[in-house]
Amino acid sequence: MSSSDIFIGETIGTAILILLGGGVCAAVTLKASKAKDAGWLAVTFGWGFAVLTGAYLAGGVSGAHLNPAVTIGLAIEGGTKWSDVPLYLASQLLGAMIGAVLVWLTYLGQFKAHLTDPEILAAQPMEEGLVDQKAAPKAGPVLGVFSTGPEIRNYAQNVLTEIIATVVLVLAILTQGLNDDGNGLGTLGALITALVVVSIGLSLGGPTGYAINPVRDLGPRIVHSVLPLPNKGSSDWAYAWVPVAGPLIGGAIAGGLYNLAFK
Amino acid sequence: MSSSDIFIGETIGTAILILLGGGVCAAVTLKASKAKDAGWLAVTFGWGFAVLTGAYLAGGVSGAHLNPAVTIGLAIEGGTKWSDVPLYLASQLLGAMIGAVLVWLTYLGQFKAHLTDPEILAAQPMEEGLVDQKAAPKAGPVLGVFSTGPEIRNYAQNVLTEIIATVVLVLAILTQGLNDDGNGLGTLGALITALVVVSIGLSLGGPTGYAINPVRDLGPRIVHSVLPLPNKGSSDWAYAWVPVAGPLIGGAIAGGLYNLAFK
Amino acid sequence: MSSSDIFIGETIGTAILILLGGGVCAAVTLKASKAKDAGWLAVTFGWGFAVLTGAYLAGGVSGAHLNPAVTIGLAIEGGTKWSDVPLYLASQLLGAMIGAVLVWLTYLGQFKAHLTDPEILAAQPMEEGLVDQKAAPKAGPVLGVFSTGPEIRNYAQNVLTEIIATVVLVLAILTQGLNDDGNGLGTLGALITALVVVSIGLSLGGPTGYAINPVRDLGPRIVHSVLPLPNKGSSDWAYAWVPVAGPLIGGAIAGGLYNLAFK
Amino acid sequence: MSSSDIFIGETIGTAILILLGGGVCAAVTLKASKAKDAGWLAVTFGWGFAVLTGAYLAGGVSGAHLNPAVTIGLAIEGGTKWSDVPLYLASQLLGAMIGAVLVWLTYLGQFKAHLTDPEILAAQPMEEGLVDQKAAPKAGPVLGVFSTGPEIRNYAQNVLTEIIATVVLVLAILTQGLNDDGNGLGTLGALITALVVVSIGLSLGGPTGYAINPVRDLGPRIVHSVLPLPNKGSSDWAYAWVPVAGPLIGGAIAGGLYNLAFK
Repeated sequence: MSSSDIFIGETIGTAILILLGGGVCAAVTLKASKAKDAGWLAVTFGWGFAVLTGAYLAGGVSGAHLNPAVTIGLAIEGGTKWSDVPLYLASQLLGAMIGAVLVWLTYLGQFKAHLTDPEILAAQPMEEGLVDQKAAPKAGPVLGVFSTGPEIRNYAQNVLTEIIATVVLVLAILTQGLNDDGNGLGTLGALITALVVVSIGLSLGGPTGYAINPVRDLGPRIVHSVLPLPNKGSSDWAYAWVPVAGPLIGGAIAGGLYNLAFK
Repeated sequence: MSSSDIFIGETIGTAILILLGGGVCAAVTLKASKAKDAGWLAVTFGWGFAVLTGAYLAGGVSGAHLNPAVTIGLAIEGGTKWSDVPLYLASQLLGAMIGAVLVWLTYLGQFKAHLTDPEILAAQPMEEGLVDQKAAPKAGPVLGVFSTGPEIRNYAQNVLTEIIATVVLVLAILTQGLNDDGNGLGTLGALITALVVVSIGLSLGGPTGYAINPVRDLGPRIVHSVLPLPNKGSSDWAYAWVPVAGPLIGGAIAGGLYNLAFK
Repeated sequence: MSSSDIFIGETIGTAILILLGGGVCAAVTLKASKAKDAGWLAVTFGWGFAVLTGAYLAGGVSGAHLNPAVTIGLAIEGGTKWSDVPLYLASQLLGAMIGAVLVWLTYLGQFKAHLTDPEILAAQPMEEGLVDQKAAPKAGPVLGVFSTGPEIRNYAQNVLTEIIATVVLVLAILTQGLNDDGNGLGTLGALITALVVVSIGLSLGGPTGYAINPVRDLGPRIVHSVLPLPNKGSSDWAYAWVPVAGPLIGGAIAGGLYNLAFK
Repeated sequence: MSSSDIFIGETIGTAILILLGGGVCAAVTLKASKAKDAGWLAVTFGWGFAVLTGAYLAGGVSGAHLNPAVTIGLAIEGGTKWSDVPLYLASQLLGAMIGAVLVWLTYLGQFKAHLTDPEILAAQPMEEGLVDQKAAPKAGPVLGVFSTGPEIRNYAQNVLTEIIATVVLVLAILTQGLNDDGNGLGTLGALITALVVVSIGLSLGGPTGYAINPVRDLGPRIVHSVLPLPNKGSSDWAYAWVPVAGPLIGGAIAGGLYNLAFK
């Protein structure tokens, strides 16, 4: 695989992934969206089919990792050269930032309407389920459109949840080598991966919102911090390391477990 | 592909697409429908599986474009001859109009019950989420069954949203050439395309209702304007250019981007 | 295909179809069911995956028609011998009746709890959406678990709706000959057909509850009329011809249209 | 298939199945989960895609039974050696227990928040739909995250429901031999099986919560009984035999029926 294939496939694929994934968060969150309050099933199918679309687009070009945790897992497993890893990761981060900007452009009017509504601004931006959180940084009213956040803030627990969820994801992707011909994601493989992501969202997304992908969280958080949004509030940088570290550790564990158990 | 294959496949396929797509809008909107208020997930799966059914039916006949934005994208990419484009577009528009008439026939009793209900007629036909819209034309109480409309009326923003959403759609369809054998939509390709459409609906449909297909909006709008429905209200022609221009521009951009990046 | 293959495949396949299809109606309707009020999306996915399961089971045995409208359409198209039609139809009706009995056995406790609850019995069994229906026969409080009924009772309109919906179904199944190898329902074909059925439910099911299959309605209605259920009420035989005639006409039209347009 | 393949595939595959399946129950049940009250459709898709993920992971290793009822059915059908059965069953039970522990670790904070909330503890842990149950043991407030329970407690009825549901599952899995090449679950076969499980959940899960798998219920129940959860309440051992016996009987019936009807 050439460097330009990796760059093009991962940048465009991750941009589409985040455009559609961030898009469903905007769709169910923002004022004056037809999908407002469409529910958790809509969010999880939205992210799953975002993976499908991104993986389908980039599969034949770069193998469609779209996620540093997948790249790390594949490097440990041996399917990806370690020398290609930096380019994969950089392209993914760039793509994630482009995707977040595209979400903003798609929902331009909705962001403005949402962030200038006095009632919305006065409301507690944190959700009802929230347990008492001492010294918890306050997330801004639209940060959830960009990045993940925990329902109960406990960094050790939150990292553990992200690790477990990412192990499931990366193990499923690595297993494709057993089922398919091993050339990255084929068409049916992209569909299965997408439904595995829906599964992880439905089943393991409750505590932290399932980043399971470092750039899915970091890229949009950077964009949130620089975009000229009125009243956008904090980017919650105190939490930002969790959805980076958890998935990276999870991807590495999955790679090791795969080598140990399935090879 | 012969002219008669194009005409038959595109007309019947687009008619089925609009019958099922417009049908789900009727199903969740009209009085005395078992699916009333079934929610955004029902709408987006309904449109996605409408694409599946139409593409499955017409795939082996005309390649199942069913959408001028797809035809334009394929013509730019080289998969469709420019000389076939006018016939594709005309057949699609004809099919879309036939589909809209079939929706009306299927929901005949529901239309009448809905449009003669004094409570429904007295209610503000626009949805609650709507932001203050100076001089916004009022959409009739069942126009949403036929055509799309914006939650926040701002033509530049609305066109931009439609362009972004259509780029995703057409790029995904063009990419099939990389994954499949390139003979239009195969069976698995039709399924993936359908789920990409669900994805676009969930993620990018919030602001404008995702026409992403000029005839999907224009054909039914023409039918709305001529059907003998009591109290049907305005066909909102002021907005009609947006879901035509946006998708055509998006399809062209996708074709160019594909040639640039993936060829 | 031997007579015993047809008999076994169609009887077992249709029994499973109706067990799962009637099952989801019981699940969302009856008292003390975990799925109570799960909504229209649950009903439509439930029926779609019921088709998937039945078609998957019987596909390799009898070709998995499971529906007289499909058998008629295939006979007109030429894929099924007219001399086999009576056996197909009889097996399907028998299977549908067995399936309805199995629904009753699965939900034994729920039926009893539902039909002996004074509040439920006192309530108007017809749904809120119902438009004024002169001389409409009253459906019993659990008839909807067995058979379909219209939201607005107008036999001509109801038949028309069933015809349109069945044309879509049978046309999609006949088209498989263009996409697959034509040996009845293959595995992917069964999945596509299932999702087409979800589509028809979401989009065209609003007015009549989409029988689109004569035995799906008639078999369970017979079982409803003979089962020893307390307070079960009327079996609404006045409506019973609609979901038989409509689908049969629709299947025949689809067969003719296929021969005309796609051959 | 070697003993170590069976052990590794079934243990890891069943652990993933129960992590994701128990996970969705935790997600919709526990306080401070983003998926709280996401509904029955979320639960059934969650379990279905849990099967997909587990089957996809273990398919190429052990054939992905993940369920003693499937193993028994396959042994009767002849696809699995009787001498391998004990190892299959033991690995599945071990995997199910590991999976339940992983659910607990993923939702650590949520369990604590839920089980120390005075309002939740004071509330009747049984659901509203419940019919008067003489001498019914009280299920603890989070037992439903681990194991199944009936809406109406009647052991004969409950066993019957589990038998019927399991016959459908195992029959569908055995039929794959007719559709696929018979080497356990292929990729598309795993998807179909997953959707069959969604179907069973939607259609037959109302009365008992569809264990349809002895270890899915017994493994997590054992874990519930030993985990150091505050205020966790009873593990309802009086019911524990039903979701073990029902599925085992159902698997055996399916194996016999398959041999009789489809071979």
